[in-house]
Parts: sequence; structure tokens; C-alpha cells
Amino acid sequence: MMRMHDIITKKQIGRELDEEDIAFFVKGVTDGSIPDYQISALLMALWFRGMSEEETVCLTEYLTDSGVINELPSIKGKKVDKHSTGGVGDKVSLIVGPMVAAANKGVYVPKMAGRGLGFTGGTLDKLEACKGVNTEISAEEFESIVHDLGFCIAGQSKRLAPAESRLSALRDVTATANCIPLIAAGVMSKKLASGSECIVLDVKCGSGSFCKTMREAEELARLMVRIGAKEKRKTIAIITDMSAPLGCAVGNSVELIEAIRVLEGRGDERLTELCITLAANMLYAANVADYEACVAIAEETLYDGSALDKLAELVERLGGDKRYIYDTSLFEESNVTAMLVAEKSGYITKIDAYEVGRAASVLGAGRDRMGEAIDHSAGIILNKRIGDRIEEGEALATLQAKTIERAQSGMEHLFRAVTISDEKPEQQKIILRII
Amino acid sequence: MMRMHDIITKKQIGRELDEEDIAFFVKGVTDGSIPDYQISALLMALWFRGMSEEETVCLTEYLTDSGVINELPSIKGKKVDKHSTGGVGDKVSLIVGPMVAAANKGVYVPKMAGRGLGFTGGTLDKLEACKGVNTEISAEEFESIVHDLGFCIAGQSKRLAPAESRLSALRDVTATANCIPLIAAGVMSKKLASGSECIVLDVKCGSGSFCKTMREAEELARLMVRIGAKEKRKTIAIITDMSAPLGCAVGNSVELIEAIRVLEGRGDERLTELCITLAANMLYAANVADYEACVAIAEETLYDGSALDKLAELVERLGGDKRYIYDTSLFEESNVTAMLVAEKSGYITKIDAYEVGRAASVLGAGRDRMGEAIDHSAGIILNKRIGDRIEEGEALATLQAKTIERAQSGMEHLFRAVTISDEKPEQQKIILRII
Repeated sequence: MMRMHDIITKKQIGRELDEEDIAFFVKGVTDGSIPDYQISALLMALWFRGMSEEETVCLTEYLTDSGVINELPSIKGKKVDKHSTGGVGDKVSLIVGPMVAAANKGVYVPKMAGRGLGFTGGTLDKLEACKGVNTEISAEEFESIVHDLGFCIAGQSKRLAPAESRLSALRDVTATANCIPLIAAGVMSKKLASGSECIVLDVKCGSGSFCKTMREAEELARLMVRIGAKEKRKTIAIITDMSAPLGCAVGNSVELIEAIRVLEGRGDERLTELCITLAANMLYAANVADYEACVAIAEETLYDGSALDKLAELVERLGGDKRYIYDTSLFEESNVTAMLVAEKSGYITKIDAYEVGRAASVLGAGRDRMGEAIDHSAGIILNKRIGDRIEEGEALATLQAKTIERAQSGMEHLFRAVTISDEKPEQQKIILRII
Repeated sequence: MMRMHDIITKKQIGRELDEEDIAFFVKGVTDGSIPDYQISALLMALWFRGMSEEETVCLTEYLTDSGVINELPSIKGKKVDKHSTGGVGDKVSLIVGPMVAAANKGVYVPKMAGRGLGFTGGTLDKLEACKGVNTEISAEEFESIVHDLGFCIAGQSKRLAPAESRLSALRDVTATANCIPLIAAGVMSKKLASGSECIVLDVKCGSGSFCKTMREAEELARLMVRIGAKEKRKTIAIITDMSAPLGCAVGNSVELIEAIRVLEGRGDERLTELCITLAANMLYAANVADYEACVAIAEETLYDGSALDKLAELVERLGGDKRYIYDTSLFEESNVTAMLVAEKSGYITKIDAYEVGRAASVLGAGRDRMGEAIDHSAGIILNKRIGDRIEEGEALATLQAKTIERAQSGMEHLFRAVTISDEKPEQQKIILRII
């Protein structure tokens, strides 16, 4: 008889788990026969010992098969999924889904997103900052929206890779989230279960993400691409900078508004560049055209307003008020608005993503436990980017919160995040490497 | 605000926990505010990273203070506690308690024992193999028996170091039982809470115990002696051999019967030597006399029958039938008795404690989960010891079980435990080192 205790010991002393061990483990995670405390003991042992590529592929496959596979039989074109490993100010899914759909090349983006724990809400929370939007829809409704609009962003079905959902929730609370093979198996099992033929991965690198160094980001990216290839999915990984927050807005409604600016063709330059690159790679992965042509197609959707219209259509299908998309002055304002001003003159040389994330979190934009409410209006708008000149007393950022206490506490974190020096720094590229 | 997540991370990345961290952790373990899965993640991180002596002492102190301290105000003499780190066939507590009490030198042994998980039952289960004995008594009754008889063996109060009880239960099921600083903090916190001035530790070394090597056993022994000294308790650690089972009997009633043989002065030689050494050290720790004199006092209690009478008195006070102690033919017999015979002639060179333990466990002498019933009559009696000559076809051991299936399965394990060779081996000493 197999015992979980023996599997923990095996990994603990540094031996490799075989298929039988992994099958037993995933079955017990799925049906609840293995208790949380044994799962978390194994997760910690895995954190220390790591996993071979063979173990990781095997785990990915069993996690994928722990639930249903999303077939979407009514969708006749290529399905492309996009995933980001997560960072501060990442509103990209809200932009690239509409872009690929607006390209109108028979490529579908059935994007299941999460709420997540962390500094701010997840993609769903950001979308729900628009009045009336409800992302908890049925599988049938999801498929019908994908069919009609070419894309949909909605809550992840609980039936997709349920074992991975349980592992993921435990990793969040046991300090084992930052384990490369577990991240790779987790991401890829969800993507494989969601049934797309092509997968484009945005692997973040820098203080605001799991992978603090290029070495780690490359390791994760290569591992996920190899798993994708083994499972016969066209998989592209793009390593992007997360040393500074993505764009100027960090929060929920402020991020949705920033996404709208990009879709209007007047968004932050680096963020726009990233969105075009990702959308172009999604089209390219689906064999729409050569890469340069895909870039042009993607760009066009921003400048002709078609991608913005797609987002407005989605909002409407999800029960929301699409006027918000065309008139962002309608968004709810927060109670307290505070301004962080520069203490001295100089150039902005650093805006630490991690510290900005902490600031957003204390403002009320995130949640500590699953199921907690978040404050959609709380957040940060940075007025300056790295490399910008700033004068003493000039406004560096605007903070929004429900209470003065939260605003003050956020201010302290944000103050620590920003470095001003005399010398103008070099701009860090947003796209670091494509794998 | 402190968060358990941060404490896990701190240890995970190899930093030392400070007093504030440990206080927060033990409080959360005690009041239930920290969930099992976070505790087990930290336990596994501790398994990998270890603990400094300062951390271990600090953890011991907070675990001790997580419950009440057993004061036993009516006991006027010195209180001496004895603890074994556990092995196969260890019935020593049933022998040395009566010996020290029978010495009648004003030294008291208030021994709280456990049931434990593992190969066989714990000391309480062995004692309860005698008809009528109930070891779950009140604190008042415990104190009154210690007062009247000079010793008592009973169930551990749930109010002593409750945080350690929770940690210990989690360590058993998460493969983190074998972590030296956690063993030391666990043992010493229970002993400190039980209020004795002197502590004699039997640290087992060999395949049937946690410490497989002398290096580990010494590390554990020295650590516990230093903790004892810091807490102003006279602490002696004796490292003893656990490569082969202790004595000839492994089970519950068979072990109680073997304890009676030792108390009658006609027990297994090595086991008797160990019991005299431990009892003498207990008397010596309590300043009864010089060590040689303490040995003589301890020996005398075996040969004049006074220690045996003490055990009979305890059995009576615990509601048991003391005739069993003087006539072991009264003990319940098992359904199935099987004989393991030697496949070839030669000398017994190895009786692996771990494999014998496994054999006892499959016979039904142990339990897998807390609260499970055990079969008191199941067990093994070894007819031969290491160094003995055996002829092909001669009986090596007798096995007792409820069913033939269990007996067969136990036989297979026991067969693997014993090695017969042509050359007579050297005898392994029972007492390896005193610290």
C-alpha cells in the first residue's frame, strides 16, 4: 500500500518521485484523501529539493487530468491562450484579448483568469471595477461569448485541473509559491486543461515577480516551453521586465482605465509595446502571417478603435455598463486622494515594483485571504517613469484609498519605492527575451 | 503585524528565528490560530535548515510554558524523570520506575508516558496488557500514587506542554519526526513541564531508533543535556545500543512479561544491565550516594523482589489484577502462534531492530493512527540473541498474532531481520556512552 508519508520521505532525502508516486499524490489531492498538512510538507520538501524535468512533466499531466478538459466544440478557429506569471500593474490580459479578437483573423482567445491573492486584485477584479460586470458565468455562456466576440475573459471553471487549484492555494499560504517546477506544472496544467492549441507566456522578471533574476526567468520559460512542446502545443515564452511596475497605474479601476488608454492608442509606451508584442505573438503562434505582419495587424487594432470596441462588447455581455469604457470619468472615485511629491530634484532612477505593490496592498487594492472583498477604487497612479526628470515639490504619484490611515500607510511604502538621483539612467527594455 | 508566512520564509531561506518569531509560532500552535498546513510547512523547513542551540532553547521554553507545570506539591523528596527516545522492545520504564521506588531513598519517579505510534504500543499499552489496568487517571490520583508508592506510570496530562503535543502529532505524519533540534525541544519541554528536578535520558542509537549513527545520538544527547543545564535540571544522557531489539520480547503483553522477568532477577542480561545503569543514574542524579553505591542499591531491588512488588502495587492502584504480575501464565494467549526456524546453521550476527519492529507492527502490536485499538497479545519472542549458535531447523523466534495472514506477513519481515553467518560476531555493548 502506498503511503503519503513515504512519498514525503522520498523527496525529503533527495530521491526522484516516479509516476506511481505522482499519480497517488495527485489522486489524493483531488479526492481529498491526503490532508493539507501532508501536502504542504511535500510542497516544502519540493521547494528544497526541486524536481527533474521528467517529474515536472509527469506532475503537469496528472494535474491536467485531475479535472475536465475545456473542449469548446463550437469554436472552429485556432484557440490561443495567454498567461502572465504575474507582476505589479499587469493589466495586459484586458488589452491583448480584445486586440487578437479585433484582428478578426479567425483566432479565438478563451481566457480564463483568476482573482488571486497579492498586491492588487487579479484580472477579474480589474474587469469588475466597471459597474455591473460579473465574471462568474457558466461554461455555456463562456463558450457563447468566445464564439460571438472572438474572445472572453471570465472566472476559471472549478472543474479545470482542480488538483492544481488546491496545490496553488496551499502554496500561497506556505511560502512555496516561488518554486520553479511547481510554477511551471501549475501554469501549464491549467493552460493544457483550458484546451487551446497555442500558448503565449509572459514570464516576468524582476523585483515585482517570482523570478527575481534573468537566470530564474529563463529557467521557468524554457521549462514551460518544453512542457508545451511535449504536449504538442505551440508555446512561446516572452520574458519581460518587472523591476518597475507595468504602466503607470496599480490597483483595480485605475488599471482598467489604463487598459482603456492603451486600447485608445494613447497608453503608456512600454505597456503598449508589450501588448503589441504579446498580441502579435499570439497571432503568429496561430499561423496568421509572418511575425512582422502580425505586429502590424496588432497595432492596427489599437489605432482604428476596434480593440476598444471589443472590450466594450465584452463588458456588455458580462452585464456591465459599456459607457464606462468610452467615458472613464464615470468610474467611482475614492474617498481620499493623496499626492506624493518629490523631496529633491533629479532623475527617477528606480521605481521598485515590489514596494509599489506593497503600497497598493496597504491602500486596500489587494486581499490577504481568498473571498475577501477588495476596494476597486484604491490604487496608485504614477506621474513619472524611470528616466523622467522631476523637480523638488513636484507630484510624483497620486494615491487613492478609502481612509486617510490607509493613504498614509501607502504613502510610506511608495516613498521607499522611488529613488531620485542626479544622473539620468538608461531605460530598461520591456521585452527582455523571446524563447 | 506578524504573519506565519513570513516566519516560514525566514527559516526557508536559512535565517535564524528570533524570540518574537518563536513566541508568535508557539502561541498560534497552542491556541489553534495557525493552521496545520502552515505548521507542517515550517516543520519541513526546520528539517532542512536545522536550528541553532539558541533557537532550540527558546523553542523549548515556549513549548514548556504553553501549558501547566506539574508541581506535585505533596511530594517532598527529589523527583527524577526518565525518558527514552524510543526503540524496538523498549520496556525499560516498566522496570526502572519500580526499581527506584523500591530503593526507598526518598526519590520519586512521577513518570508520564505515551501510547505513541509505531511498531508496538507505548509504555501505557504494555502496562494495560495486564487485565484491568487503566492508565488514564486524574492528576490528583497520579500525585497520590506517586506519594504512596514512590512512583507512578500513567497517561500524560493533556495540559502539559500542549503545543508540543500538537507539533509531535504533526511531525509523525509529515516525515519530520527525525529532526534533532525538534526532538530535543519536544522531549525537554515535556520533561520540564512535568516538574522533576533530575532527568535521565536514554538516547537510543541504531537502526531501530531515530539516531542511526553515534554522531547523531551524541548530538541529540549533548543538546538535551545543555538544555537541561540551562533550565537548572540535573540532566544525564546515556547513549544505548538500538541496532538489535532490546531484550527478547517485542509486542505488548510479551514485553510486560519480559519486564517481570527482569524484576524477578532472571531477565535478559543486556536488558538487565541497561535497567540497572539507568536506575543507578537516577539515584545518583538525586544525590543518593556515589555511583558505585547507587548501582548496588539498584541491583538489590531486583534480587530481593522489592521492585517486583512495587510493580504489583502499581497495577493494583490502577485497577488491575496483580496476580498477573506473580503468575504470567494468566496473560491472554494469542490465536495463532508461529515458529521461525533457522534455514542454516551458524552464528546469529544480526537481528535488525527496524525489521523486527516492522514485523511486530504487521503482527498487530502497533497502531497506524492515534486512537486505533492494538492487539495486546500480538508480538515476537526471540529465542536467540546476537552471538548465539543456531542449528538448521532450530527455532529462532515465536510469533503471536490474531490471524494466520498477520502471522505469515510478520514471519516474512522477521526472516529478513536475522542474519546467520559462519563466524561468531563480537558482542555489541548495550551502554555505549554516558554524557
